Amino acid sequence: SLQVVFSSPHISCLHRRAKLKVRAAMDLPSTVQEVPTPCLLVDLDRVKKNCTAMRERCENLGLQLRCHMKTHKTLELGEIMTNGSKRCITVSTIKEAQFFADGGYDDILYAYPLTANKIPILQGFVNKLESFHVTVDSDYNLDILRDSTLNDGKKWSVFVMVDTGYGRDGVKWDDKAAVDFILRVNESPNIVFQGLYTHEGIAYNARGRDQLRTIGGTVVDNIASLAQRLKEAGIECCNVGIGSTPSASHPPSNTNLLTELHPGNYVFYDSMQAMIGSCTKDDIACRVATRVVNHLSHSNSLLIDCGWEGLSLDGKDELPTGFCMFQNNPNLKLVKMTQEIGTVQAVEGTLDFSKYPLGSMLYMYPYHACATASMHPVYYIHEGDNIIDTYSPCRGWY
Amino acid sequence: SLQVVFSSPHISCLHRRAKLKVRAAMDLPSTVQEVPTPCLLVDLDRVKKNCTAMRERCENLGLQLRCHMKTHKTLELGEIMTNGSKRCITVSTIKEAQFFADGGYDDILYAYPLTANKIPILQGFVNKLESFHVTVDSDYNLDILRDSTLNDGKKWSVFVMVDTGYGRDGVKWDDKAAVDFILRVNESPNIVFQGLYTHEGIAYNARGRDQLRTIGGTVVDNIASLAQRLKEAGIECCNVGIGSTPSASHPPSNTNLLTELHPGNYVFYDSMQAMIGSCTKDDIACRVATRVVNHLSHSNSLLIDCGWEGLSLDGKDELPTGFCMFQNNPNLKLVKMTQEIGTVQAVEGTLDFSKYPLGSMLYMYPYHACATASMHPVYYIHEGDNIIDTYSPCRGWY
Repeated sequence: SLQVVFSSPHISCLHRRAKLKVRAAMDLPSTVQEVPTPCLLVDLDRVKKNCTAMRERCENLGLQLRCHMKTHKTLELGEIMTNGSKRCITVSTIKEAQFFADGGYDDILYAYPLTANKIPILQGFVNKLESFHVTVDSDYNLDILRDSTLNDGKKWSVFVMVDTGYGRDGVKWDDKAAVDFILRVNESPNIVFQGLYTHEGIAYNARGRDQLRTIGGTVVDNIASLAQRLKEAGIECCNVGIGSTPSASHPPSNTNLLTELHPGNYVFYDSMQAMIGSCTKDDIACRVATRVVNHLSHSNSLLIDCGWEGLSLDGKDELPTGFCMFQNNPNLKLVKMTQEIGTVQAVEGTLDFSKYPLGSMLYMYPYHACATASMHPVYYIHEGDNIIDTYSPCRGWY
Repeated sequence: SLQVVFSSPHISCLHRRAKLKVRAAMDLPSTVQEVPTPCLLVDLDRVKKNCTAMRERCENLGLQLRCHMKTHKTLELGEIMTNGSKRCITVSTIKEAQFFADGGYDDILYAYPLTANKIPILQGFVNKLESFHVTVDSDYNLDILRDSTLNDGKKWSVFVMVDTGYGRDGVKWDDKAAVDFILRVNESPNIVFQGLYTHEGIAYNARGRDQLRTIGGTVVDNIASLAQRLKEAGIECCNVGIGSTPSASHPPSNTNLLTELHPGNYVFYDSMQAMIGSCTKDDIACRVATRVVNHLSHSNSLLIDCGWEGLSLDGKDELPTGFCMFQNNPNLKLVKMTQEIGTVQAVEGTLDFSKYPLGSMLYMYPYHACATASMHPVYYIHEGDNIIDTYSPCRGWY
């Protein structure tokens, strides 16, 4: 499918489609030095390296990789993450589920709290796809699934969301009520209980591989302990999965207690992941390109043509270099952003404006790639310095 | 124009277009109680009231309103802001300029720092539109305009960006070099000097009408003083404009020294503007609708189906109620957001979960409407409680 804007409906669709493709090809800048700014640059070689590493890690550990699409939300990068299979993915919005299902993907886990208003559209996915899964963590969730019917005797494929220490959604892993709840899930006639799912948000508090493995080990122990108590109650967990890029990048030693991982951010990584220790700076596969637009001598600042509209406000006060890391310019700090303008100062000493002429380019590694990518309606894809394509993410929720 | 997704190119465009319109009409929720969540609700009556008030204020003061489109970026709301004229607007991205020009708008001021890479596309606007203006504040800007040629002896229509105390871009209002620079602008053969433009960012530091009028009065004095010095140097400023919603909502007494105002945010207003004193809570014309998706007894928190992807991270630590104000629920505080989930606690005391059943709706007044609107690919438009339409903003930069 192709997004097209009609203006002359008497021109045939095919003709217009061909014309637009030609125009798009003509408009594509040649290199990362010539892109319009601000824009999101995606280094395809680094993406492939990150995705291969994660896939091989999972293969070596005997785990299924159910990669999350939320960071990039594009069909093309999903294909790289799934090694071309377009199977076994996680999404967090209905719009993503729709977008990937329309793009030929299947075996989709919608890992998001259910509400009654979403049931009709979710029924559509179950009826259409070979395999579509939802998550539950309350009797309210269970009731709205029980009350809905599916075509041809199909059943809801359900993971139970578990809180393994993060304190957000999910049944508490060590709560007696969790086992009782899962017994009710398992007994529901139009539900197939698939297993346990947890988001390992606490891994973001770790710094360095040792801490990541320690935290990850505890999370695995916690979810496996619930699976064991379920087994004792007569319920087999076919799937026990945990997810987060930090823990999946440096998994603990007890992953034999799991069946799958569902990280997402690793497709790009970012400055936050480098700070945590999930990756190195050289693994970060996305940058925001920006140009210097002003020299302010009175405050020894540069202005750049990227504000929070192009970078997001995520990361305030988190990095010594402000909201991002500047490639090859470790002494630059992004101190402030308005909607379309950023203010850059020196981390130490004074800025030498002659090193940053007006109109010259700077490249920023975002603090949080998920937040930055979500600001961009199009990504510029490059191999080396050459722009080879643009990818368009899905946006919205419903 | 209509966004269409092709799947069967042999179906005629017109037929498909009609079908999609029917489907779109069917998909539109009836009321604000039934919308998908999260979504941005725009109260059309409040928008019209805000726009009428600003227009009448400008008329009474004898000032031209050159409203900024950056907050909403839609053709429909631009029409309300310009009272149907589609003339005399301000934009801050090339994408906005393109979008509004394609939508029949004219007399567009691109109030953004120029770089050489943008000149070719800006030349296109000058050649196409009756009236297209740019801003400059450096000899670099001036040089790239001088070096470029326009069709049919057309000239660049240029405003000089002035720093009246905000400390971001612009020539310093009290600097001798400012007059010398504007003399060079005025002498450039392919440039028509239009006047002075300033963004009154410091007005955001004010609290209450008195402070707004005091700060606004100083800004007007500063820019008028530069205009006076220019006059003494033999240069007439046809236009002297200042802009920011706080100061334009409660203008100072010396606006007779100005010719135009260019606020933008007032189309929606927001919690920040209510805090500043630009508006009351009852003027805020946009809300984010969200549903309660979880009750966390261990932390006495609600989870809602809106994270920073639906609200933006703007406003951290600014309001006693967190990142937003909840309509009719002054004791709720949005304490934390991840990508798609928000955590809500009580400002004081404990939450009574029975008042917020799972699946029930809450409405949030954003801290910063510009930032929140920028997260949404579609706005739901309502009159009273009835959803009457959806508007699609432009996104991106180039």
